Amino acid sequence: MGMKKKPERIYSRPDLQRKKRRCFPEVVFGEGKEIAHLREVVQKIYAEEKEVLITRLSADRFSALHDMGIALDYDPVSRTAMAGGKRDVVGEVAVITAGTADVAVAEECMRTLAYFGIGAKSYYDVGVAGIHRLFDVLEAIRAADCAVVCAGMDGALPSVTAGLVDIPVIAVPTSVGYGASFQGMAALLSMLNSCAEGIAAVNIDNGFGAAYMAAQIVKAIYEKRK
Amino acid sequence: MGMKKKPERIYSRPDLQRKKRRCFPEVVFGEGKEIAHLREVVQKIYAEEKEVLITRLSADRFSALHDMGIALDYDPVSRTAMAGGKRDVVGEVAVITAGTADVAVAEECMRTLAYFGIGAKSYYDVGVAGIHRLFDVLEAIRAADCAVVCAGMDGALPSVTAGLVDIPVIAVPTSVGYGASFQGMAALLSMLNSCAEGIAAVNIDNGFGAAYMAAQIVKAIYEKRK
Amino acid sequence: MGMKKKPERIYSRPDLQRKKRRCFPEVVFGEGKEIAHLREVVQKIYAEEKEVLITRLSADRFSALHDMGIALDYDPVSRTAMAGGKRDVVGEVAVITAGTADVAVAEECMRTLAYFGIGAKSYYDVGVAGIHRLFDVLEAIRAADCAVVCAGMDGALPSVTAGLVDIPVIAVPTSVGYGASFQGMAALLSMLNSCAEGIAAVNIDNGFGAAYMAAQIVKAIYEKRK
Amino acid sequence: MGMKKKPERIYSRPDLQRKKRRCFPEVVFGEGKEIAHLREVVQKIYAEEKEVLITRLSADRFSALHDMGIALDYDPVSRTAMAGGKRDVVGEVAVITAGTADVAVAEECMRTLAYFGIGAKSYYDVGVAGIHRLFDVLEAIRAADCAVVCAGMDGALPSVTAGLVDIPVIAVPTSVGYGASFQGMAALLSMLNSCAEGIAAVNIDNGFGAAYMAAQIVKAIYEKRK
Amino acid sequence: MGMKKKPERIYSRPDLQRKKRRCFPEVVFGEGKEIAHLREVVQKIYAEEKEVLITRLSADRFSALHDMGIALDYDPVSRTAMAGGKRDVVGEVAVITAGTADVAVAEECMRTLAYFGIGAKSYYDVGVAGIHRLFDVLEAIRAADCAVVCAGMDGALPSVTAGLVDIPVIAVPTSVGYGASFQGMAALLSMLNSCAEGIAAVNIDNGFGAAYMAAQIVKAIYEKRK
Amino acid sequence: MGMKKKPERIYSRPDLQRKKRRCFPEVVFGEGKEIAHLREVVQKIYAEEKEVLITRLSADRFSALHDMGIALDYDPVSRTAMAGGKRDVVGEVAVITAGTADVAVAEECMRTLAYFGIGAKSYYDVGVAGIHRLFDVLEAIRAADCAVVCAGMDGALPSVTAGLVDIPVIAVPTSVGYGASFQGMAALLSMLNSCAEGIAAVNIDNGFGAAYMAAQIVKAIYEKRK
Amino acid sequence: MGMKKKPERIYSRPDLQRKKRRCFPEVVFGEGKEIAHLREVVQKIYAEEKEVLITRLSADRFSALHDMGIALDYDPVSRTAMAGGKRDVVGEVAVITAGTADVAVAEECMRTLAYFGIGAKSYYDVGVAGIHRLFDVLEAIRAADCAVVCAGMDGALPSVTAGLVDIPVIAVPTSVGYGASFQGMAALLSMLNSCAEGIAAVNIDNGFGAAYMAAQIVKAIYEKRK
Amino acid sequence: MGMKKKPERIYSRPDLQRKKRRCFPEVVFGEGKEIAHLREVVQKIYAEEKEVLITRLSADRFSALHDMGIALDYDPVSRTAMAGGKRDVVGEVAVITAGTADVAVAEECMRTLAYFGIGAKSYYDVGVAGIHRLFDVLEAIRAADCAVVCAGMDGALPSVTAGLVDIPVIAVPTSVGYGASFQGMAALLSMLNSCAEGIAAVNIDNGFGAAYMAAQIVKAIYEKRK
Repeated sequence: MGMKKKPERIYSRPDLQRKKRRCFPEVVFGEGKEIAHLREVVQKIYAEEKEVLITRLSADRFSALHDMGIALDYDPVSRTAMAGGKRDVVGEVAVITAGTADVAVAEECMRTLAYFGIGAKSYYDVGVAGIHRLFDVLEAIRAADCAVVCAGMDGALPSVTAGLVDIPVIAVPTSVGYGASFQGMAALLSMLNSCAEGIAAVNIDNGFGAAYMAAQIVKAIYEKRK
Repeated sequence: MGMKKKPERIYSRPDLQRKKRRCFPEVVFGEGKEIAHLREVVQKIYAEEKEVLITRLSADRFSALHDMGIALDYDPVSRTAMAGGKRDVVGEVAVITAGTADVAVAEECMRTLAYFGIGAKSYYDVGVAGIHRLFDVLEAIRAADCAVVCAGMDGALPSVTAGLVDIPVIAVPTSVGYGASFQGMAALLSMLNSCAEGIAAVNIDNGFGAAYMAAQIVKAIYEKRK
Repeated sequence: MGMKKKPERIYSRPDLQRKKRRCFPEVVFGEGKEIAHLREVVQKIYAEEKEVLITRLSADRFSALHDMGIALDYDPVSRTAMAGGKRDVVGEVAVITAGTADVAVAEECMRTLAYFGIGAKSYYDVGVAGIHRLFDVLEAIRAADCAVVCAGMDGALPSVTAGLVDIPVIAVPTSVGYGASFQGMAALLSMLNSCAEGIAAVNIDNGFGAAYMAAQIVKAIYEKRK
Repeated sequence: MGMKKKPERIYSRPDLQRKKRRCFPEVVFGEGKEIAHLREVVQKIYAEEKEVLITRLSADRFSALHDMGIALDYDPVSRTAMAGGKRDVVGEVAVITAGTADVAVAEECMRTLAYFGIGAKSYYDVGVAGIHRLFDVLEAIRAADCAVVCAGMDGALPSVTAGLVDIPVIAVPTSVGYGASFQGMAALLSMLNSCAEGIAAVNIDNGFGAAYMAAQIVKAIYEKRK
Repeated sequence: MGMKKKPERIYSRPDLQRKKRRCFPEVVFGEGKEIAHLREVVQKIYAEEKEVLITRLSADRFSALHDMGIALDYDPVSRTAMAGGKRDVVGEVAVITAGTADVAVAEECMRTLAYFGIGAKSYYDVGVAGIHRLFDVLEAIRAADCAVVCAGMDGALPSVTAGLVDIPVIAVPTSVGYGASFQGMAALLSMLNSCAEGIAAVNIDNGFGAAYMAAQIVKAIYEKRK
Repeated sequence: MGMKKKPERIYSRPDLQRKKRRCFPEVVFGEGKEIAHLREVVQKIYAEEKEVLITRLSADRFSALHDMGIALDYDPVSRTAMAGGKRDVVGEVAVITAGTADVAVAEECMRTLAYFGIGAKSYYDVGVAGIHRLFDVLEAIRAADCAVVCAGMDGALPSVTAGLVDIPVIAVPTSVGYGASFQGMAALLSMLNSCAEGIAAVNIDNGFGAAYMAAQIVKAIYEKRK
Repeated sequence: MGMKKKPERIYSRPDLQRKKRRCFPEVVFGEGKEIAHLREVVQKIYAEEKEVLITRLSADRFSALHDMGIALDYDPVSRTAMAGGKRDVVGEVAVITAGTADVAVAEECMRTLAYFGIGAKSYYDVGVAGIHRLFDVLEAIRAADCAVVCAGMDGALPSVTAGLVDIPVIAVPTSVGYGASFQGMAALLSMLNSCAEGIAAVNIDNGFGAAYMAAQIVKAIYEKRK
Repeated sequence: MGMKKKPERIYSRPDLQRKKRRCFPEVVFGEGKEIAHLREVVQKIYAEEKEVLITRLSADRFSALHDMGIALDYDPVSRTAMAGGKRDVVGEVAVITAGTADVAVAEECMRTLAYFGIGAKSYYDVGVAGIHRLFDVLEAIRAADCAVVCAGMDGALPSVTAGLVDIPVIAVPTSVGYGASFQGMAALLSMLNSCAEGIAAVNIDNGFGAAYMAAQIVKAIYEKRK
């Protein structure tokens, strides 16, 4: 059949115009791709941009990237690897979690913000089962440009937070929970039906997407309108 | 075929032992039954118990019951009709709603508690979009024997409430909402995944079931153990 | 039982601190409440704020509000009624729809933005079945502060739009469609899984929620940081 | 990037006011957290409370906690570890299962009740396929303060039990089953739709949550009102 | 366009070989068809078979069939119309319901059995909330050739019944209930996951299908093997 | 507010390049749009193309279009209206239904094919309950260029048909059925999981979409490659 | 805590009256139970009945049962183990599969029938993608007392089979398939919505349950009525 | 029991008439079957046809087929093995993916087309996040006979593509994504609800099925009508 022997076939077309069009270079989704294809994508982007961020990258798959001559910094909690990404830091995003088990998703957000040059502070484990913990950090959150709130299980924290602040709230459902949490579906639905306004949601466990949305907001505040 | 002409057929078998076995007589579910069958059930129970409660009864269907010689008191908000039900009042249940649109479900709970002779106070429209409203009534809620918390949309209020009290919390999801609320499914899932403990849920819009559970708890406190 | 005769019962507790805490007064959700309760909420808010916005209000229910002495302006397309709401206009939101059937949701967004004093321009019926229509208005969209994109059916337009702009994109799934659209679920899932970043979603048909999120972003740009 | 090098970051905020507010100290959810974070939470709680309960803790993860200087008693069936928890025992909860495969969930309930100082007796494998087994233990169950009924598959046992007793019934769906049991969803739905009243449900496999609800009820009976 | 003017088009092809192949003539599903097409089907079958049964026929649609010269006997509870169907009666099916609201589905089963010439006895409103009612009629049920058990809500009755008899049990979930019953889905799942064996399920509200399955079983007992 | 008074707002942008790009002019989806907007779309297209097809148009909504000066031919079974559409007829599509209740969907397909100038023959009511009916017309179906197979309930007919022919099969699930058919979901899933190959599915009740796909195939055969 | 040290606790209550009440002894569900509990159940039943059948038993778990002194015959395809079960064989069940991948489920049925003393013949891999294979064996199937039809993917075979025979058809959806088969849900829904009658369904992959239902039917034919 | 010892049992009935009836020999689905049965099927087909294609074959299972004397060519990306399949190549299918992670599914399609003797060209990683990549290859795609478009996540690419071409588009949802992608369900629903026409969908990850549908179309163009 010989399909595999045709070396000229193109498996990836990184979007090298993205930085110009959308401010940040294409970020690599680390799951699902064949290892050879993953390496190809990372190399094409790094060659052009001199920086690269890879998300949802397991430690196993990261180990298959170590010999590419790119100084990737890997963080096992957030499962992200990055090289370059040096920028001046602007703005401040409050990254909040309901529980300690949501930290991995929040750290994906923190890492992405750092790569994008957006300032961020974390407020972890302040969920509604002990709501005084949220009030303890509320003034600090109000001082941020926008908030990213990660929660699994009942997904109640984004609603409660949004009711208390006047900054945009990006809600991130996490897959933390079991049984009728349906891998984060319960939290997602709760967030979409928030009785507090000024809130919008991203996909389950999508700390990266929340960071991107937050970065667009922060850049609008500090760069576009200056 | 003549099936309808056999008058000896039995369409209902009210459980006339229930009051003895479970403290309260059988309550009639007002939906779905043929009108003739509904009348038959109500009459059989009233004849034996001299009291009856009908739930989920539309105004239309209630009007088909007016000529039965039973002095039914109908409340269109809770869609309940009752006759008799005079008992000494015992205990105190806090019946709470997140919004004003949840009131119909809460009133089904209030009416059922009244029929069962259980004391109740209502705290309506104290949802998390303006959480200070909950704090305004928190001490009063803490003084109750148990709490029934009704919420649609994000269903966050039972979690927040349970985190603040040390009485049993019965969560009632309501079908208030639209879109991804899926007729109360979002609120139900949120409540089942509550990050606060000491909470259990009943069916969507089931104010009656919450009242029954609360009544069992109150009776255990005041009667069984005295 | 006399429950209805106790006039002192409280059915609504409008959050009169909200304007101070969150910039805008409480907006009234027009569905589900008893008419008497709806009137009570509207009156309490208008008495305090001298302005009020009611969403998801059918023409039938609006007609039950005409004798309250409040000069409500009702729009049947967006199903909103408002009084007051005079503010200086700031910023610019691009409100986009995939099809003409999505206009009702987009108009709910437009009306809410107008009430909040946020500038807005509409770009309707530019869906991906004829994608050149989007390119025709792309430069205008890029000049806005943020974009609200409403789409039913495949929900593809927010992804395509987000891939072309560097402003935050708020995605609004609509219930336009049939069969396997599951009343907007297909569009919602598509938006949550957008392969383009810088996008976050609100509930199905929630033009109001998108407007609120957009307003928070615009205010952050023009007011908070000035 | 150096994110991991900032040692001052806070990953957990145990709720050390919970014992005072809700009678019992915070219980640790053993899944999902990074091991380092899990150890941190357990240590913070134990340092303050001199007791700790960890639920949903796999044997693997338990082995990562053995060198913390806390004498944790681990039970592999219920997947719980605890230290301290000595209290006078009060009340009696009947913990019931439909089958032998539901025992792990029931034991999580039993262990939690023991930690909380609530008396409990178990009645296992009395499901409706051989309903005489339930009748054999019915009088003993009726003598308890409340019942926790665990069932997978059809989830029918809580309905049948509630119809026979006058104590509150807490229903626990389990993930026992296959195919259209959808990991306990079938049992959960069955319990939420119980035709018998005086019943409320917790999450699938949530033996811990059932124990907490039961503990709140028992304490209301024996302590609050005495 | 003229599509409607081509009279030779064929809209229905009743299966006139079915009586020979499957013992009973084709039964007409009364929903969804255009009235003209429904009339055509009924006439084609009656012309050939001199008998016809129509199921799921609303009173409105039945009124559109009165002038066809076929003496249809219409029953509004079961929503069935039939003509002919005279046969010797054989066997005995026990048709059981959990509640009175399930009677309409059970009557569709009873009517179909009558049309097919299968004996049947009804045992209605014997659900598990008062399980003694089932025991009252258990000996009579055990004497039947097979049982059809109709239940909505928790759908528990077929499991309990099957655990007590040694005849085949056909379970019919009904759409009786609300909220998380999801129009009978909860009952259906419960029945498919029955912990008792010797049970198989038909579609929600499918009293007709249960009757057909029962008829096949009864005929196998009395006719095929004699 | 004055939003409604700005007459210059654009509610529809018909894709007038579509005929050139995709062979057929834009077809109007008749549901959901405001009547005023629907009229606007129809007029814009007819003015340019001198032909128009409107699908999913209820008789009520059609009556609101009669005074537009366009000679619309309305068919209530398929709920389509069309004007113009005269073309030479090419090719042959076999349009098949499992039952008579599926005819409305099939007729939407037939009407769309007629508008597009594609030949079609119908084979209705040949479902698998009496599979000999399919064999009776099988040779005729095999002579077509492609087949469109409409089925509700179990959705089995497309699989069976595809196993017997060597032409492309377009499967159309219909919402015919009840209970666990979930408005056509059961049929859709069945078709997507067909054990026979050479089959692809469109949305539930989407006779129009099937016609479009068939038209693309027929045109490829007769026009593109000639 | 020492919970595990109380040896008197009862983890299983095998239903030793079942053979008398339901003709066959209790069958052991091999999944989910702790190994110690599984051994206990098997021993209690074998001690009383001198025969035992265990279903859904993985090879791993079977190996933990080899030292119990019971001569278990294990079959890895059907994942069943049995001892004893010698009975005179009566009747004939046709066990049919759509594909070769469905054989494991069908063999669970065959093994259970053998244990119960019911005759059976297998007709495997006769699915509708090549429907002539079904016709090849149709006469043999028609001669059986009832049919068990196992199918995954589209689940179409039971409908087609039922349309061709006059014996009861028990449909068994299997989890064979991928993607939108949702682990057998597609096949299950297809079977519940069968357009052919005389069919009832059991749970996904439930070959055992189908065998039990078939055994009840066969016994009714040959034993109860003789 | 000895069931396994009866060598005469038939576990597979390959459809050896399929090549004649449907142009291509039966293709073997590599999942789920027992290894012994899989070998049997492959051998029976190869013996008759001198060619065979096996899909969804893991590397592990492929290794169990190496000693059968059939020169199978295995490709680990597409998880297909084939022998023979030499045919003249006809036509051209454009095989398109949204991302690099969708390549495995697309390669299953490419390999199947190669086996069937259908020409194909691949256009990978041209998704809507950088839509200019699609425009870069659009003219090439338009020159094909039909298009197969594979996409996970939002599944938007088939809609966008179909809006730009006049060839039939076969949409293949892939399971690429996470969270609310629900293993490809989001992409599938998006494709079924495409606002662009001339599109039909196959099962999630079903590259083989798309190839088969494309082959039927190509053969109709080049062979049937020549």
